[in-house]
Amino acid sequence: MKHLLSISDLSKDEIIGLLDEADKFRAALEGREVKKLPTLRGRTIFTMFYENSTRTRSSFETAGKWMSADVINVSASGSSVKKGESLKDTASTLAAVGADAIVMRHPSSGAAQQVAQWLGPNGPSIINAGDGAHQHPTQALLDAVTMRQRLGRLTGLKVVIVGDCLHSRVVRSNVELHAALGNEVVLVAPPTLLPTGVENWPVRVSYEMDDEIKDADVVMMLRVQQERMHGGFFPSHREYATLYGMSKARAASMREDAIVMHPGPMLRGMEMNYHVADGPQTAVLQQVSNGVHVRMAVLFTTLIGTES
Amino acid sequence: MKHLLSISDLSKDEIIGLLDEADKFRAALEGREVKKLPTLRGRTIFTMFYENSTRTRSSFETAGKWMSADVINVSASGSSVKKGESLKDTASTLAAVGADAIVMRHPSSGAAQQVAQWLGPNGPSIINAGDGAHQHPTQALLDAVTMRQRLGRLTGLKVVIVGDCLHSRVVRSNVELHAALGNEVVLVAPPTLLPTGVENWPVRVSYEMDDEIKDADVVMMLRVQQERMHGGFFPSHREYATLYGMSKARAASMREDAIVMHPGPMLRGMEMNYHVADGPQTAVLQQVSNGVHVRMAVLFTTLIGTES
Amino acid sequence: MKHLLSISDLSKDEIIGLLDEADKFRAALEGREVKKLPTLRGRTIFTMFYENSTRTRSSFETAGKWMSADVINVSASGSSVKKGESLKDTASTLAAVGADAIVMRHPSSGAAQQVAQWLGPNGPSIINAGDGAHQHPTQALLDAVTMRQRLGRLTGLKVVIVGDCLHSRVVRSNVELHAALGNEVVLVAPPTLLPTGVENWPVRVSYEMDDEIKDADVVMMLRVQQERMHGGFFPSHREYATLYGMSKARAASMREDAIVMHPGPMLRGMEMNYHVADGPQTAVLQQVSNGVHVRMAVLFTTLIGTES
Repeated sequence: MKHLLSISDLSKDEIIGLLDEADKFRAALEGREVKKLPTLRGRTIFTMFYENSTRTRSSFETAGKWMSADVINVSASGSSVKKGESLKDTASTLAAVGADAIVMRHPSSGAAQQVAQWLGPNGPSIINAGDGAHQHPTQALLDAVTMRQRLGRLTGLKVVIVGDCLHSRVVRSNVELHAALGNEVVLVAPPTLLPTGVENWPVRVSYEMDDEIKDADVVMMLRVQQERMHGGFFPSHREYATLYGMSKARAASMREDAIVMHPGPMLRGMEMNYHVADGPQTAVLQQVSNGVHVRMAVLFTTLIGTES
Repeated sequence: MKHLLSISDLSKDEIIGLLDEADKFRAALEGREVKKLPTLRGRTIFTMFYENSTRTRSSFETAGKWMSADVINVSASGSSVKKGESLKDTASTLAAVGADAIVMRHPSSGAAQQVAQWLGPNGPSIINAGDGAHQHPTQALLDAVTMRQRLGRLTGLKVVIVGDCLHSRVVRSNVELHAALGNEVVLVAPPTLLPTGVENWPVRVSYEMDDEIKDADVVMMLRVQQERMHGGFFPSHREYATLYGMSKARAASMREDAIVMHPGPMLRGMEMNYHVADGPQTAVLQQVSNGVHVRMAVLFTTLIGTES
Repeated sequence: MKHLLSISDLSKDEIIGLLDEADKFRAALEGREVKKLPTLRGRTIFTMFYENSTRTRSSFETAGKWMSADVINVSASGSSVKKGESLKDTASTLAAVGADAIVMRHPSSGAAQQVAQWLGPNGPSIINAGDGAHQHPTQALLDAVTMRQRLGRLTGLKVVIVGDCLHSRVVRSNVELHAALGNEVVLVAPPTLLPTGVENWPVRVSYEMDDEIKDADVVMMLRVQQERMHGGFFPSHREYATLYGMSKARAASMREDAIVMHPGPMLRGMEMNYHVADGPQTAVLQQVSNGVHVRMAVLFTTLIGTES
């Protein structure tokens, strides 16, 4: 596996392999004060983030540093993007500087795929850390690790995804992952926040959150991506919270072992009630922790590879 | 000592202990070309700066790296703060990523304390690198190290602090530190730049800079924090410089062994005369150098602890 | 060699020495998966960039990290420059924090020289990474390494430099370097983009690009620095491209072994045709790769020195 561009590039076995690898890294590090493996010593990882990010960038940086890689951050602000340089030239430059991997986030769907093609088979590994409304594969993988930890299995699940499915790359990556695993996925969203062509996705669409979450194993709340919205996608924050928010009552209506997830950053009070967000059903911080191990697995697999 | 939130949390013995530890780190590094200790190898330190900073952030980053820690920088610009994430969620995220310590600067007084409470006893160490107009404890510690180096003692001192006491977190941390050590502190400031309630502080207030500095051991000039001022706190820069600036004449009127300090960044010509700023009385760059050793001591003590 | 401020400070032997050193670093690293030398372990390098940059900053950061140095980035945004601190005080602060070297880019010509004088003989090494329209010495060195690789020699060359010579620091450093080596340099530019006093430079000026490039060994295209232009330096992008752009026809008219260079970032379509930019005559990415090795050589030579 040279790149990680999209969940759709992965077979079921490859997905499970990455999750197992992530578990191995967690086991290798958990409880150790000295979190440092020599695995990627002398490898150079560039992060190239054209959009704001705390958790994804710092998670990748942490993953790289815990494996002793050199990690160098490049952001759109402060870079030659401001001088009119094309994405192709910026990426080629980082490759020529000596990148073994480029972890990239970009506002345009398909940007990571495009860069991987431009840089060719001798270029660095490209890890998609979010491209527009398209894919965020490490997010879906860390979600899956979290589900397996909490539920003890990754099959026979009902996964309900609630909220802004139109602008979300998280939803696309998760839908593909659970299609590969054979799980049932239900999208709950206002019609204005559903993507066109959703009828061809391997999902069921519903407008009744209350009905759907009762027997769900996982309820995944999405972030309302206001920075991508230009126009009135829903009447008011209050109405959104009422129809599509994870209230205390809704959380209480879920099965006892079911979990609530959110890729973060959360808008508390709107997408999720404050108490639910911090309650035991919610796996948000576990998702974040698993993110580092998943990114270690992805960097390791793309840069060093596995025997299989 | 798990956190460093405020000088007021420290006993006199703990203060002296940190200063001694800083001296040990200086002694261990001074004159060595290879400035690298294995002390914090495998520990992960996040800096989370919500305000501009050169010296504090780079000083902490240097301190961490000289002890072989992994240091990861997060700033408000470029982070999920721009997406509306709360401070609690951002801090929880960094903890979940794997922070052993979070070094944080925030415009709100009490922010570091709040984060320490939120993250709880199993969370990372929180180091306050400046919270609003409240505290900047490592600054007061590095000031004290510098005084001890220059004056040979830390007792029986008269410390005169001049300037914008209202917006300064440096003044609060220094007042508490010198109260703990039993030193005399005099604040000299225009009435508009004195905090309310100053009558309950363990200080004397004066409006006569010339009188106060003659027998002072230390004259600490404060930065005029124009970015926190909304309105006319003083008539003009010229008047401020005349009444509260460290002129050549004032510097000459001080005792021969007395020192002039400034936490930086200085506004030369206003807060301090150019020649005085670069003269031998002034300890500004010595303060900066000591800052790294103090931060090494603080990171070491909070992350590893001492035998005592 | 304590600093690298300007190509004019270097003798021909020193230039060749740095190029040879760069070749040694390339040879030491090429083809190795683990790109890590212990050369600068325990040395602290600050990058202080007051202008946007991708390739130069990340190239220096990579060079430092591959030699195991601690590299700490300071940018104007996010730093105390925003609080009104002078360049002198910011640089003095970084020196006091513990910088062994400061790699600096600044919009004012002469800034690096000035900082070197301020910080004095006991201060850190200052590496000029671009000062206004004055000098960019590591760029000229990496250009020379690239020419030697591609042409097999560094003497008897005709170097044609095309474009915005007025705002370019690249042109000044290259002119001085090729004057030292005894090569012929021809500047081709619209009269409005030629610097005053160019008649005293060791160059020939021409307005006929087509004539000059036919027998050139090297055609170096410059970036049109629109961010430094306030006013109409040329009628239109289209006219500029027609008169001074590297079109397919022009590239085809060059000698078979001649090379096209560009310091980057390129404005494709204006300064250079898309196909030419990616074609085999063009050495742009080779320049970038050589940049890391040249910067390793410069950091090594200024921080550790050579036997000679």
